[in-house]
Amino acid sequence: MDGVIADTVMQFINWYDKDYGIKIGVEAFHGKPEIEVFPEGVMKKIVYSPGFFRNVPVMYGAQEALKELMQYFDVFIVSAAMEFPQSLPEKYDWLKEHFPFIGWRNIIFCGDKSVIGTDYMIDDHVRNLDFFKGKTILFTAGHNIDIDRHTRVNNWEEAMSFFKKELQNSQNNN
Amino acid sequence: MDGVIADTVMQFINWYDKDYGIKIGVEAFHGKPEIEVFPEGVMKKIVYSPGFFRNVPVMYGAQEALKELMQYFDVFIVSAAMEFPQSLPEKYDWLKEHFPFIGWRNIIFCGDKSVIGTDYMIDDHVRNLDFFKGKTILFTAGHNIDIDRHTRVNNWEEAMSFFKKELQNSQNNN
Repeated sequence: MDGVIADTVMQFINWYDKDYGIKIGVEAFHGKPEIEVFPEGVMKKIVYSPGFFRNVPVMYGAQEALKELMQYFDVFIVSAAMEFPQSLPEKYDWLKEHFPFIGWRNIIFCGDKSVIGTDYMIDDHVRNLDFFKGKTILFTAGHNIDIDRHTRVNNWEEAMSFFKKELQNSQNNN
Repeated sequence: MDGVIADTVMQFINWYDKDYGIKIGVEAFHGKPEIEVFPEGVMKKIVYSPGFFRNVPVMYGAQEALKELMQYFDVFIVSAAMEFPQSLPEKYDWLKEHFPFIGWRNIIFCGDKSVIGTDYMIDDHVRNLDFFKGKTILFTAGHNIDIDRHTRVNNWEEAMSFFKKELQNSQNNN
């Protein structure tokens, strides 16, 4: 969810400006964990702010991409949200608003994604991909730009190209 | 969670008495879906009542059993709660109160359990067990008493006997 269909970095930038009056650019996130972008304690304060997750901008192209993907795949939204339980209703309402075509059966809020048994996982965090048994796709984020051990997509257009190739390969094999 | 570590049937009985003044026994749940126990619309009204999930009694023996299981297994609480999103914070707070030894990494709220890739699943609903790829254990509830296609346990004592045998078998095989 965060960093894949929700543009959480953009929300960090907006919130930091709103609450602290400090403007930073996306380049501040390059090559380091998000927590290191802000002074100590600030990121935690931001993610616990009511409304933070409810108002995250949608990742560019995610709505159209998921609608199309759902024609060929069972699509599940899996969010490692349990560390921030106050975010659960906000994340649910956000999905209802921006992805109303995703039904409640296909939403999963968890802590650790290691028990998710889907065929593919698209994620910006390698901690979620490294132990995944299916095919992994790393969605580019500033904090993961130096990592090369997963198939990388830079945006939803590239993600859709990947999945279309997968579909073609599976059709050629049948 | 419901019907396995949470005694949701007992909560239905208590809530129905409290709100409607009608006392029913557990035998009313035998051999039929829970929704058929109540007049039309009543069950839906009950599960959407604030506080319903927050105050469910703990299933007898579940706390001690899970504490012991965690010595040998990675234990995940998986609740198909997404149909009732208002229940998410209540279920989270309930777990924090009654199972504080279960960390947030091991809690999963989902809609459909079909993508859960654990080795075992213990559940009272066959819809969650029938398509599960690992070993299935049916926890007895009134609505499932006529089903014989999964390993049945009638309570947490029997569940622990099952898992102890599994542990012995795995040790004998190593």
